Amino acid sequence: MRSYTNADVKRLDIEHFIHPYTDFATFRQEGSQITASASGVHIFDEEGRKYLDGIAGLWCVNLGHGRRELVDAIAHQAATMQYYNPFGHSTNVPAALLAAELAELLPGSLNHVFYTTGGSTANDLAIRMVHHYFNRLGKPNKKKIIARVDAYHGSTYVTAQLTGIHATKYGFDSVGQDFIHHISAANSYRRPAGMSEAAYCDHLVQEFEDRILQLGPDNVAAFIAEPIMGAGGVLVAPDGYHRRMHAICRKYGLLYIADEVVTAFGRLGEWSASEALYGYVPDIMILAKGLTSGYIPLGAAVFSSEFYDVIASPQCEGGQLTLGFTYSGHAVACAAGLATIETMKRDGLNEHVRVVGPAFLKALEALNAFEIVGDVRGSHLMCGIELVKDKVAKRSFAPTVGSAHQVFLACRERGLIVRPIGDKIVLSPPLIFTEEHCQETVRILSEAISAVSDTLLAA
Amino acid sequence: MRSYTNADVKRLDIEHFIHPYTDFATFRQEGSQITASASGVHIFDEEGRKYLDGIAGLWCVNLGHGRRELVDAIAHQAATMQYYNPFGHSTNVPAALLAAELAELLPGSLNHVFYTTGGSTANDLAIRMVHHYFNRLGKPNKKKIIARVDAYHGSTYVTAQLTGIHATKYGFDSVGQDFIHHISAANSYRRPAGMSEAAYCDHLVQEFEDRILQLGPDNVAAFIAEPIMGAGGVLVAPDGYHRRMHAICRKYGLLYIADEVVTAFGRLGEWSASEALYGYVPDIMILAKGLTSGYIPLGAAVFSSEFYDVIASPQCEGGQLTLGFTYSGHAVACAAGLATIETMKRDGLNEHVRVVGPAFLKALEALNAFEIVGDVRGSHLMCGIELVKDKVAKRSFAPTVGSAHQVFLACRERGLIVRPIGDKIVLSPPLIFTEEHCQETVRILSEAISAVSDTLLAA
Repeated sequence: MRSYTNADVKRLDIEHFIHPYTDFATFRQEGSQITASASGVHIFDEEGRKYLDGIAGLWCVNLGHGRRELVDAIAHQAATMQYYNPFGHSTNVPAALLAAELAELLPGSLNHVFYTTGGSTANDLAIRMVHHYFNRLGKPNKKKIIARVDAYHGSTYVTAQLTGIHATKYGFDSVGQDFIHHISAANSYRRPAGMSEAAYCDHLVQEFEDRILQLGPDNVAAFIAEPIMGAGGVLVAPDGYHRRMHAICRKYGLLYIADEVVTAFGRLGEWSASEALYGYVPDIMILAKGLTSGYIPLGAAVFSSEFYDVIASPQCEGGQLTLGFTYSGHAVACAAGLATIETMKRDGLNEHVRVVGPAFLKALEALNAFEIVGDVRGSHLMCGIELVKDKVAKRSFAPTVGSAHQVFLACRERGLIVRPIGDKIVLSPPLIFTEEHCQETVRILSEAISAVSDTLLAA
Repeated sequence: MRSYTNADVKRLDIEHFIHPYTDFATFRQEGSQITASASGVHIFDEEGRKYLDGIAGLWCVNLGHGRRELVDAIAHQAATMQYYNPFGHSTNVPAALLAAELAELLPGSLNHVFYTTGGSTANDLAIRMVHHYFNRLGKPNKKKIIARVDAYHGSTYVTAQLTGIHATKYGFDSVGQDFIHHISAANSYRRPAGMSEAAYCDHLVQEFEDRILQLGPDNVAAFIAEPIMGAGGVLVAPDGYHRRMHAICRKYGLLYIADEVVTAFGRLGEWSASEALYGYVPDIMILAKGLTSGYIPLGAAVFSSEFYDVIASPQCEGGQLTLGFTYSGHAVACAAGLATIETMKRDGLNEHVRVVGPAFLKALEALNAFEIVGDVRGSHLMCGIELVKDKVAKRSFAPTVGSAHQVFLACRERGLIVRPIGDKIVLSPPLIFTEEHCQETVRILSEAISAVSDTLLAA
């Protein structure tokens, strides 16, 4: 291969790589920061500058970077049997074993795994499959999906429609408006003034039930929700919310799809959060990100036995379940999944997160002292900070101020990566974060917020 | 990790892995064949039986299995910097360099790469992006997409709708029916009796133009087509078809999306087929499969500079192009792409395919001697055989006969993997196939067809 200077890479990147979520007002002038290498909880840019990775790549590098166990498992599988299609009566060892591992780790009868290439494709496939399921049950009208404002479910055409984050919609069209509906997010910080959290929960559950009744229970197929909303700004639902939403699903014959792309695989100190933390078992669970610790693209929609029994009954002589991707059950990706699970078990990472996670949130709460910090929230290693122009009135900065982006830049200067989303700063570090890393994160965040506060308030 | 016997893997596979395109009438009884290892043009099952891989995994393992160059590139990148998000102003070296390589290898001004995780997500993203493009141009009504019967474009909800293969639709719902339309496939073998190929081409082009006029040119955004239809049964269009369809697109202001997931990266002896073999330059080209030789999931939608200039102009202050996947530009996948290109160049694989490809098709044509072989067709290392019950009347077998599946089983018994799709047998071997491998393929296919012919004709 030809050799390239950093300047070459920067130029070629600007000229040829269309990045997700790019601001083209500045991209061609500024170009990209190059992540050249990575190890443990750190990434290094093209000039060797070191950064504490406060977001695990993008909520996914749960084991940390450059893990030898993962590299070895990937290389071994790539050399042994990197790919053969798993269509029909054909399989490979890692895909079969990972499916069995997932069945063991996930709650209830979530025993049947359909592999995809990430969270978007897993949610997209789940929706197609839910529609198929109700066709098979002879209920062709039971098709509507209820999602939530501020939800993030992906970037295929249909999962972008499931997504309820307003800012992702600008300039794009809709698809499936006839079957995708949104109810309110569970946003305790932004709940009506004077309303208790318990009353807010009642209100949300009632809204859900009302919407089902309005649409007609015979027309509504499923509810889809993240246990904690991620890209929406780390929104933790009120106590009992998920259990009660699940009960409403049961009452009206809806399926509950838990989008655990972010929350599963240790981020909340559990293999998955639905049952362990929130007391319900979904009918379908969506996995990606932590599933391979981000080392190789992989997603999965995991279905209950009750669901599987319907879709896995033969439709007609020679009939097939006609969906799936070339890379469903990719052997190298599934080997990365198995190695991730093995490493998490061996290192006791769920147990570690149960200790370090609460300490992290507690340390972050010190940031509440800042005038521009409206809210610090989260659970375990999934935390968010909401910036405000007026703390008492909970008034946001104007979008053009880019408040969280300014904090992101100030953190980066100081060697810490956080993720800015509008007025929110998201933190989702590798699970191997120690209490020292947590303290360092809070220290740099404090300095960064101090450094930009006056400018932001004056803007 | 625990150790498992082959019987364990088979049982766990049946119990937990939902395979794409499975016939559940037989799956639980028969279970899966396990592809345990693979090397060069061969795969090996769990009992060590060796098979010549006539389909390159699934039209994708173009370099052959177990290539050291690929394994090393993957392991090196995984150890150095396996993943960091490429959102906004953030990049990694392999993603930037691969984008630049693609710009160099692809025709015209196809210079701007949006990465996805496979062909489905690349086609899905292209459709979202086309709609966005016409919104940006102030043409919000120009949204309809014309695809073709028998096309295969993927398995997300929207790309399954683009797909025109009737057999994939059973039991599934539609989405985007308001903007996705289908015209006829270019199926020379099934063209009206007595019509010349030239007249058939005229007919197809006229149908396309008529459909545009019927829908209203101001409402039609794009035409999407595979240069040679793959899963539709290796349908090679009449001479001049693509060039003329492209001219119609230009005449009415439609974009041409070339789905080169199968045809690019050497399968037809070229980096891509559109311009080199068919004389047109698309506005958007879709890549996957051969892009990484199937070693790591990766897809890409590559856009022309004219298209890019529209979508890459800033929409509003702080506005972002709000789409993309966590795994867009995954460093390990892009490293596999770079190693694939480097290996193809070094080994002269395009040049090799230009020699061995025509010889393969010529050798396959001997199969025309069989009573049940209606058609042998294809180009280079992408070939298809259509089985018929009545050769003169071109009458198909009843679907329940599973004609191609019977030939597949008979080939597998004899150590060759082919791909059965309805009445068609598809061949898409690794590009490293030698003339000897081609001869062996034809020999086993002959034996297999001989062995099942009488049973099929009696069914």
